[in-house]
Amino acid sequence: MPEVKVVLVHPQNEGNIGAIARAMMNFGLRELHLVAPECEVGVEARRRAMHADKIINSAKVHDTLDDALEGSDMVVGTSGVKTSNEKKYPRVAVTPREFAEKAKDFDGAVALLFGQEDFGLDAEAVNRCDMLVSIPTSSEYPIMNVSHAASVIFYELFLDGAEVWRSRNAGKMDIELLVKQFQSLLKETGYPAHKREKTTVMFRRIVGRAVISKWEYHTTMGVLKQAMRKAQPETKKKKKSAKKP
Amino acid sequence: MPEVKVVLVHPQNEGNIGAIARAMMNFGLRELHLVAPECEVGVEARRRAMHADKIINSAKVHDTLDDALEGSDMVVGTSGVKTSNEKKYPRVAVTPREFAEKAKDFDGAVALLFGQEDFGLDAEAVNRCDMLVSIPTSSEYPIMNVSHAASVIFYELFLDGAEVWRSRNAGKMDIELLVKQFQSLLKETGYPAHKREKTTVMFRRIVGRAVISKWEYHTTMGVLKQAMRKAQPETKKKKKSAKKP
Repeated sequence: MPEVKVVLVHPQNEGNIGAIARAMMNFGLRELHLVAPECEVGVEARRRAMHADKIINSAKVHDTLDDALEGSDMVVGTSGVKTSNEKKYPRVAVTPREFAEKAKDFDGAVALLFGQEDFGLDAEAVNRCDMLVSIPTSSEYPIMNVSHAASVIFYELFLDGAEVWRSRNAGKMDIELLVKQFQSLLKETGYPAHKREKTTVMFRRIVGRAVISKWEYHTTMGVLKQAMRKAQPETKKKKKSAKKP
Repeated sequence: MPEVKVVLVHPQNEGNIGAIARAMMNFGLRELHLVAPECEVGVEARRRAMHADKIINSAKVHDTLDDALEGSDMVVGTSGVKTSNEKKYPRVAVTPREFAEKAKDFDGAVALLFGQEDFGLDAEAVNRCDMLVSIPTSSEYPIMNVSHAASVIFYELFLDGAEVWRSRNAGKMDIELLVKQFQSLLKETGYPAHKREKTTVMFRRIVGRAVISKWEYHTTMGVLKQAMRKAQPETKKKKKSAKKP
């Protein structure tokens, strides 16, 4: 995961600045730069930033884009304009996922540029970019709110650096025991013999697709055993408990 | 790609309603439902919706969650709360990407629920969900703005939208019947009363995550009914068959 700084070029709406700061903190980004903001950065920005007000407080304000880009090894622009026309190559962009994949292996400082709400990045800024990122959207209404677009891109960056939590899954052995128990239940409850194999495979597939946790394994096993106990005649239960001390 | 309707449960902020409508249109979603909104849906909602004001205009307002969920085959909740505690299983969630992958193959109406800005979905709504989705975020500040969270989830759904549907899925009604049958079986087989509700929710989640087909529904139902028949004493069986001719 590279070091990523977020650069807002001539931002016009302080609510959006706050909303972007909040999204930054949600996804572990810290460094915010503002190039010649055209709005105040005050109460409304902090209100929208919520707990990310410290990002607003430590944001650096620059007079020019050049100043803001100092020390950046890769400049990445975000663009709402999509084009497949190679003649308009300055606007040919990668998806946020492609960008995140590329960024993951990049060792250096990345500046991620967002333009104005209405016009996006101007030609000067676009020409400075080493890469453009564009979010796939409906052609009917492709223009996203800038803090929404930022959230999607930050999310993709975070996913590629994040350790997503996984609950402890039931193991192969657990699944086998569960399938076996299910099979026994079918037999014990008088489920039609010619359907048993097919139904057992179905059960295995459902459990497989659901990717059950250890806890879900134990609980499901408990349910099957309880039904089994109920299904078995008293005599058999005694015999069985005698066999297995 | 399933038909997805967006359901806001007791929304409190009309700006967020507008922002979510805009994000919906950006990603090709149309149908917005509001459950007992605690704010006006007026000028500010339309201002933030921009060109998506038609989504605001055609939004349906419901008194209860039940009304809003009518006709939904799968109910998906969004949760900011992440847990690695398996005992808190009602809050165990999939990522937006996992959700999009599962949704892609689902043939039916999906209701996607968002809760209140401050508190998220309440326990009643969470227990109604077949699946929970949670966005991986920084542990330092995991609480996202609801329209940002919506954007990320809509984006993932949109990305997977191109793919075509495969097998016919069990509907919401089928799942309800299945869950009910499972619940009856727990009771009938003497499964400990204090564990029944929790175990029933677990069953709903496993079935929800697995996204079962019509055929799997019928077969699983057959298994549960067979076990039920075996568990019931002879007298009760006769009484029951007498009641239902």
